[in-house]
This record gives sequence, structure tokens and C-alpha cells, in this order.
Amino acid sequence: MINELARRRGFFWQSYEMYGGVSGFVTYGFLGARLKQNIEKKLRELFVNKLGIMEIEAPIIAPAKVFEASGHVDHFKEPMVECLKCGRRFRADHLLRESGKLSEAEAEKLNLKELKEAIEGHNVRCPECKGELGEPKYFLTMFKTTIGPYSEAVGYGRPEAAQNIFVEFRRLYETAREKLPFGVMQIGHALRNEISPRQGLIRLREFTIVDIEFFFDPEEPNCFLLKDFENETLRLVLAESRLRGSEDIIEVKVKEALEKSYIKVPWQAVFMTLAKKLLMELGVPSEKQRFIEKLPWERAHYSLQSFDQEVYVDRWGWIEVSGHAYRADYDLKQHMRFSGVDTQVFKEYERPVEAEKTIVKPLMTKLGPVFKDEAQKIAKMLEETKPEEVEVSFKEKGYYMLGEYKILPEHVEIRKRKVKEKGKRFIPHVVEPSFGSDRLVYVTLEYAYRVKEDRVILSFPRDIAPIQVGVYPLVSKDGLPEKAMQVYKMLVDEGFMVEYDEAGSIGRRYARADEAGIPLGITIDYETIKNDTVTIRDRDTWKQVRNHINVLPGLLHKYFQSKINFEDLGDLVK
Amino acid sequence: MINELARRRGFFWQSYEMYGGVSGFVTYGFLGARLKQNIEKKLRELFVNKLGIMEIEAPIIAPAKVFEASGHVDHFKEPMVECLKCGRRFRADHLLRESGKLSEAEAEKLNLKELKEAIEGHNVRCPECKGELGEPKYFLTMFKTTIGPYSEAVGYGRPEAAQNIFVEFRRLYETAREKLPFGVMQIGHALRNEISPRQGLIRLREFTIVDIEFFFDPEEPNCFLLKDFENETLRLVLAESRLRGSEDIIEVKVKEALEKSYIKVPWQAVFMTLAKKLLMELGVPSEKQRFIEKLPWERAHYSLQSFDQEVYVDRWGWIEVSGHAYRADYDLKQHMRFSGVDTQVFKEYERPVEAEKTIVKPLMTKLGPVFKDEAQKIAKMLEETKPEEVEVSFKEKGYYMLGEYKILPEHVEIRKRKVKEKGKRFIPHVVEPSFGSDRLVYVTLEYAYRVKEDRVILSFPRDIAPIQVGVYPLVSKDGLPEKAMQVYKMLVDEGFMVEYDEAGSIGRRYARADEAGIPLGITIDYETIKNDTVTIRDRDTWKQVRNHINVLPGLLHKYFQSKINFEDLGDLVK
Repeated sequence: MINELARRRGFFWQSYEMYGGVSGFVTYGFLGARLKQNIEKKLRELFVNKLGIMEIEAPIIAPAKVFEASGHVDHFKEPMVECLKCGRRFRADHLLRESGKLSEAEAEKLNLKELKEAIEGHNVRCPECKGELGEPKYFLTMFKTTIGPYSEAVGYGRPEAAQNIFVEFRRLYETAREKLPFGVMQIGHALRNEISPRQGLIRLREFTIVDIEFFFDPEEPNCFLLKDFENETLRLVLAESRLRGSEDIIEVKVKEALEKSYIKVPWQAVFMTLAKKLLMELGVPSEKQRFIEKLPWERAHYSLQSFDQEVYVDRWGWIEVSGHAYRADYDLKQHMRFSGVDTQVFKEYERPVEAEKTIVKPLMTKLGPVFKDEAQKIAKMLEETKPEEVEVSFKEKGYYMLGEYKILPEHVEIRKRKVKEKGKRFIPHVVEPSFGSDRLVYVTLEYAYRVKEDRVILSFPRDIAPIQVGVYPLVSKDGLPEKAMQVYKMLVDEGFMVEYDEAGSIGRRYARADEAGIPLGITIDYETIKNDTVTIRDRDTWKQVRNHINVLPGLLHKYFQSKINFEDLGDLVK
Repeated sequence: MINELARRRGFFWQSYEMYGGVSGFVTYGFLGARLKQNIEKKLRELFVNKLGIMEIEAPIIAPAKVFEASGHVDHFKEPMVECLKCGRRFRADHLLRESGKLSEAEAEKLNLKELKEAIEGHNVRCPECKGELGEPKYFLTMFKTTIGPYSEAVGYGRPEAAQNIFVEFRRLYETAREKLPFGVMQIGHALRNEISPRQGLIRLREFTIVDIEFFFDPEEPNCFLLKDFENETLRLVLAESRLRGSEDIIEVKVKEALEKSYIKVPWQAVFMTLAKKLLMELGVPSEKQRFIEKLPWERAHYSLQSFDQEVYVDRWGWIEVSGHAYRADYDLKQHMRFSGVDTQVFKEYERPVEAEKTIVKPLMTKLGPVFKDEAQKIAKMLEETKPEEVEVSFKEKGYYMLGEYKILPEHVEIRKRKVKEKGKRFIPHVVEPSFGSDRLVYVTLEYAYRVKEDRVILSFPRDIAPIQVGVYPLVSKDGLPEKAMQVYKMLVDEGFMVEYDEAGSIGRRYARADEAGIPLGITIDYETIKNDTVTIRDRDTWKQVRNHINVLPGLLHKYFQSKINFEDLGDLVK
């Protein structure tokens, strides 16, 4: 229904149709691209303009090291199984799920061996030819390439926009004037080389992701927005109830969800609330939304707690529109390990704190006789070692292995010293709200879809409608088109997105406009020539009001800022 | 200068610094991403809102077939040469140019054999180790991958956004209600796997391209915008004068450029004029711009005539910011050939035209005895053959080869028939204005850069400044921060991009804001507490005016729409 309309009116369609189409890729035509942009603009207004989150734009291609450090090279893979008869390939867990033998949650948690056993145990066969299936194998679901046309330097297409933020953390922290908390957002294309993409806009190989990484001090989250949202209600499906086999939704206030530790981090609760309100503004009522907590084996490798924001749609049931992961210090720590660059920040204490510091002092008189020429080098290495590690090793084993060198307690002197510490260094924690633009487009379309007297209306919220105003001469003669053109140009100059249409009967033009979701239609008729008034038609109610051309710009600006209603645009006709 | 400022203030920097950086990739920080977006927004307002060009959004990854058809797989390559001593690799033509032996134009036109001869002839050696250079080879400069994690299906990262438009032509033509002319635009990331990317934002491996494909009927271009622009002046460097060794700029009116065929297609002249005006609005005066016509061997393989719009910048001399290619019917024709899908449009004549049609009628009585069982098949094949081809072949050779079958004139009857043709089918022609977003950002930064009393000011045009307004409490006490916060929130709610800053002396805050290019600064002082007035400071002149808080929103909207000047914002202070 949505997909048929989307194709016909040019919202979106499968890309490369003339070459037979390629699964997992879509092209947004004029109306779709505009709708998507307007939704993304709404996210920017909320997160960047209002909350002061910094947006960045970075490359889609990254050197292999980035995704080795992030854990994606190890974890971003899917199990594939091949039919031994026809050679077709399938997602092993999907086959098990579709066979009806296992639930999605059950199938997802199986490793290769377990998948094999389950396929054999349930006698799952090729859905195409009923042939026997081979051994399941893992495939890396990132797009791989090389950077430099003849180089061996592996690069990957990013499967998320988050890593661009983590790898540039130092510069971004500087831009934030070295203060926590702060947030960074990136909206851009991401690539996942899915084994079997399906479902139109829902599972794509190339899609647009909106990743926000919000950095904070875990000891002092300083969640200054909490007070604005603590009495908002969230609809949660908790992991503990899912483990008991129930998908019951509980409705709790944000305050309670934090008190009861349903949600671990206040910032995460705030972003979930913002996400709920955002979806409502896109037309999805709160009772068609829920946040489902992921089970440990469903969570991405970097996450300590994850909720998926899901929306109920007719065609697919509950679908995810945003994910909320508590990534803690996982990513920054990994990049510090892999790059050797410090990602810690310094926090000054309000007053210096007294602390005991352990110092390992190499004794050259002892090291010299034992290690000869290497003693100097070993002394230097010891100074760079963490003193606590040496101390623990002495206690547990009686020696400390410094690389290949065995250090004994008598080789060094261990001292304790009282120091005044001015502050401490630590890696900030992060919560990540992550939206899928394409899915937001899909649910917006589905919730805008109405049928009235057998005609389709896309009732987009007025602030995201791809085209804001249609301008129509009642007939194509007697100077009406020229007058309509003047109105059209005036509104364009005022910055509105306007369509001029003079083809076909006025009824057909209205119908076409309703189907494209154009909130207002301005018609130029014979009265316009006489007294410079026009009719303004409402897409949803089909009511019409009449007013002077010269008050249109001011009134329309207010209307699209939702400061006035349709009835305030003029005098009701008839 | 620009690059140092860009890094320090977080406009942009080389990506992946923590992993040593990767050439050809940049990350835009907060100010840079916002500036780039605002420039792209300006292009959208001009081309989409005002001219009715349809924007689309399509994937970066395409199946190999698309770029085989487009000619990129054959033509999108660069000559590389390797040092036999140190193994380093270089662009062969760049080495020749940098050696000072050949000009850029001379080096670019050489084929592999000529490059080899030139390297040997001029004794060009490795710039790093002075070693001898090997044989030049071509490398495909597209990023290559596979679609589907275990498939063999080759995919490429798009080197331009144009092909997404050509391959979806049928649907886009439908959206345009099957009328010519119409235009389609795409703004998005593109990938070129350059051998030796350099020069910061100027030559990137991943960059943002703005491709507009404007389709028209070559017999009736219907260039309705020409009258608005025909008296505008363009500064051209023509190919004919470049061939004579001169880079003299001639200044001509658009009308004259078309009359004298300096520019072949009216729509191309219109877009060049729009591009000139656009760059002026970004801060580049017309005398720092020129359009240089490409020589035949410099043109892309698809282009019949190309002009590069160049801007003079201190650091690099003349650099290209947009390209204007007359792609004619090249791309649609190629995709029709490769996909078998018809990309022709039908044009109805005003009145039917009488034409003579040739018909080749197979004579079964003659074909039967000669071709036996295959006669039927051959008759069918003949009916699908173009009659004119058969006729010409008979005339020239006395027979016609239908695949492997030799058809003689006696096998068929050739008839002429008068028909009334209602219209004709043809492939639309296309002109392509193509902008590089990153280069637009660079020239905007360079032309905004000023030094005043030893302080840097980025004098961005007010409509593209990343941050519009700064709000500052004069001091951080006595209720001034709270009052400033109220003003900040009011302006944010009005949709402005506002920064709140209370750190450091007011002078330091102004300096920081000037360097970030914030056009207006609003300061809350002790008088504000008394009478609700604030000062407004101009970034460029440092003048200040005073006015009431409650008139700010209205005045600022007008100011940023360039309807009023700074002096109109209030009463001059002092």
C-alpha cells in the first residue's frame, strides 16, 4: 500500500530498476527526498539548535584499523548457510525462525555449532528446492575495499556513523572547550552488506543513520535536562520480563524507571523520552510506541544496556526506529588501546585529594650484576610500568615478568608516598541514541496515510510536508494563470516550498495534491482578479477560507510554525 | 592560514588523525559541517525552491553494470609510475608537470607510451630517492567492493552523483509529468580513489558533489530563463585561445556568447550565469572568477563541451569550483544500450507530419526453399530489423547479413509507404552543472578571512554563517547570566542558531566569536536588568546598537533575510 503509493508518486523505489534492481538499495525521488530532509531537519532543530549538540560530517570509508579497534571486524558478522543442491545462500538464523521452530530471540543467540545442530535437529531444508543445507559459516557484513587504487590498505564502508565521532574525540572535546557533558551527532549514509536484505525501507544495505554520542562523567552525569522530563511516561518491555517469556509493556515515569534501575543512566532516559516525543511529532501516537530492552545476547558487543524504540506498523508489526545503547567507555578505550593515543580527560577536584602513591625504584646495584648491559634499559622499562602491577605480581608469584625479564623483589625498592592529587584522568562514558532516517520516513508515511471518500490523503504534520503550498488557477485562461504565477513567485521568494499546477480540472489537482501531502492549496479564481482575494484549502478537512493575497506571507509563516490554525487563515467559504 | 584556523577552530581537519591520518579524507567539525550545510541549503533554495529542479537521494554504491555503461570503467583511470629503487608510486602526469618539463595540459593528454617516452626523454626520476622509474600503468580510480558479503557481484562507489539520475530517468520523467525541460539534482558523497590526493579540501578521495542534470529537447530547448540572464556578463577563457597558448579572459554578454557559439547550449549559458552569481553571494567577486573551456583531451569522455568555473585563491591559484558539461544524450543512450530499457521520450508534433516509411516484407516462398526449417525464424528476425539497414546493405554489398544468415534482395520485398507520424521518439539532451561542496567551503572561508587590528575575522555572508547570534552576559553575576539565558532560549525557540558564552572577558568572547564568523553579538549588561534593552554588536565593523529585547526576533529575522541592515537594528551606542 505504502510501497505502491511511494513508487507511483516517486517517494522512493528500489534502485537500479533498469538493471533489474539491487536488493537493499533505494532511491528517494523528489517527494521522498524532501520528506526525509525535513525529518532530518527536525532532528537537527531538536538536537543541535535546541540542545547544543555538535553536528559533524566525516567520511563513510575508514581504514581497517578503525573497525578492528571498534570490534566490528570481530563481531559484525552473520551466519550463512548454503543449499548443497541449488547453491542458494540464506541467513541461517532467519531460516530457523521462518521454519517456525525457533523464535527470533532463540535463533539469534545460537553460535555456529548450535545453528548446525538446530538445522539438523529440526530437519530444516532449503526453502527454494528442499535440498539439504551445508555447514553454517560467518560472513563479515561490512563492505570492504582498498584505499588507494593499487594499495593493499583495506578500508571498510562504515556500518554506523558513531566511530567517526570516537576517533575524532580529542578535537571534538577541544571544540566543547574541554567540558563534560557534551554531545556530537552525525547524520549520514552507512553501509551494511546484509546477506538477505528485504522489506523495502526497513532493512537496507545502504541507509541513513543518525548517531548521537553523548559524553558524560559517570561519577557526575550532570543530567541537567532530567528535571524537564522526569514526569514523562515511557512504555517499556524489560529484559527481565522477556526472559520470563512475556512482552508485557509497563508504563512508568522516567523518575521511577531510574529509581528502580530499569534504565541505568539518566541521560539515556532523557534521550528515550526525547525520542518518544519526536515520534509523536512525526505522527505516531505514544500508544503505538514501546521501548524493548535487548537481551544480553541481542545487544551489540559494545553495549551495557540497550533499548530499541519500536513503532507498530500494519505491514511488519513492531519495527525498530531508534536504538539507545549505553556504550560506556568501550569505544574510547578500544581506540586508546589500538592507537596509543590518550582518550582520557582530566577532571579537577574541587580541592586536592590526598592519596598514597606506589613507586617502584629500580636498584642499579642489584640489576647491574644480573642483567649486565641490559640493566639500564630494564631500569627505564620498570619506570614506565604500572607500579601496582609489579606489587601485585610480587605478592602473588614472588616475581614480575617484565617482557622476557624476570624481576625479583630484591631488584627494586617499593616505596609509598603521600601525594596531593589535583584531579583525575578518566575516559568519559557515552550513551548513544541512534535513529534510522529511512525507517522514520517509512513510519511517517504509514501514519500519514488516510483514505477519505475513496481518495488517498497523506496527512503529514505540517512542518515536514515535502511541499507546503500548491497554487492553482481555477481555469487556464482569462489571466488567471498569470495572476497565479505572481502568487507562486511571491511565496517562493518568501522561502516557502510551493508547487504551481494548472493541468486538469481543479478537482483532479486537489486530489493529486492531497496524495502528495500538500497541506494548503491556494486557488486563484475570477474574484481574485476583482479584489485580490484567494481561497485557501485545507488538505485534511477540505474546508476553504478566503483572504487577501497581501496577508498570505505573514499568515502562512505563522501557520507553518504552528502558531495559528487553519481557521485563522481567513473567512470560511460557504 | 585557512587550514591552520580550520583545524584550530574545528572547521575541518584530516580524518583519522589518531591512526596517523588518511590522505584524501576530511572530517568537518561543528562549524565546518554547519557552514557546508548552509552552503548546500543555499544551492537547494536556488535550484529546488526557485527553479523547480527536483532533488533526489540515491545510493553511493552501484552495481558494476552502471559504471560499465556510463564509460567510467573504461575511462576513469589515472597513469601511475613506480620507482624501481624505493617502490614509491606517483601519478605519472603529475611527475612530468612537477618536473617543470611539461605544462598540466601537455602532461594530461599523453597516453601510456607517450608518458614513458616523456619520462625517459626528460630523464624524470623519483622525487623521493632519485631512483629510476618503471613503466607507467593505468589504475581504475573507483573504489571497488562486492555487493552481498559472499557474492562475486562487483560494486563501485560512485565517482559522481549523476549516474543515479540517468539510471532512474524513466521514473523521474514520470514525476516531471513527462514534459521537457526538467532538471534533477543530487547532493551527496562521491568517491574517487585518487593515486595521490593532496591539497586539503581541494583534492579528496571522499567528497560531496552537487550534480544537476537538466534534460531538454535539443530541437526546442525552450530556455525560458534566458531572457532573465542574457545581458549578464561572463568571463571566459576559450579553448581556441588556449590552443594558441593564451589564457586571456574575454568578457562577453550571455547573448553574445550564444550568438558567437562560444557556448553551444542556451541552458548551459544560463547555469554558468547562475553559478557566477552564486559564487558572488558566497563572497567571491566576479573578477576573481573565470570559466575556462576544456580542451578536447581534457574533457570527460561524455562531454561535447565543458567549462570549468574557477576561482582565484591565494594558496593554490585558480581552482575549479564547478564544472559545466554538455553531456548531450551520451549517458541515456549508453544505459539504453546496456540495459535494453528504452530511455527515449515521445514528442507529439503540433500537427501530424507525412513521412515515407520503408518496409521489408519477408517472402516465405523464397526463404522456405533456401533456409528450410529456419525460414520462419528468419522471417521474424527480419521483421524486427531496421528496414533502412537492410536497404543500405543491399545497395552497398548486394546482400544483408542477418546474424549468420545471408539475405539476398530476392528473399524479400521492399515497399515504401506514406504514413502520418503523430510525433517522434528521441533521447533528451542534458547539460550538467556540477559543484564541489568542499571546494565551495574552501573558497568561502578564504574570501571571508580578514585581519583587523591583528585579530582574525571570518566575514561570512550573513545567510551562511554557521552560528548566527552570540549571547553574552557582560559579567557572570548579579543575575546577568540568568537574563542572558532567557534571551538565548527565546532566540533558539525562534529558530535561530545561537551560541551562549559566559567564559572569559567580554573582549575575549567577542574575539572568539569574530573568529567563528558569528555576525551578531547580543550583550546583556546592567542596563538590561533595568529596562530590558541589550546591545547588538556587528562582527565586521564592531559597531554596537541598542534596542529592546522584545523587538529582537522580528528584527533579526529581517536582518538574516537581508531585508534590513545592521544600522536598522537599534540606536547606535556612543
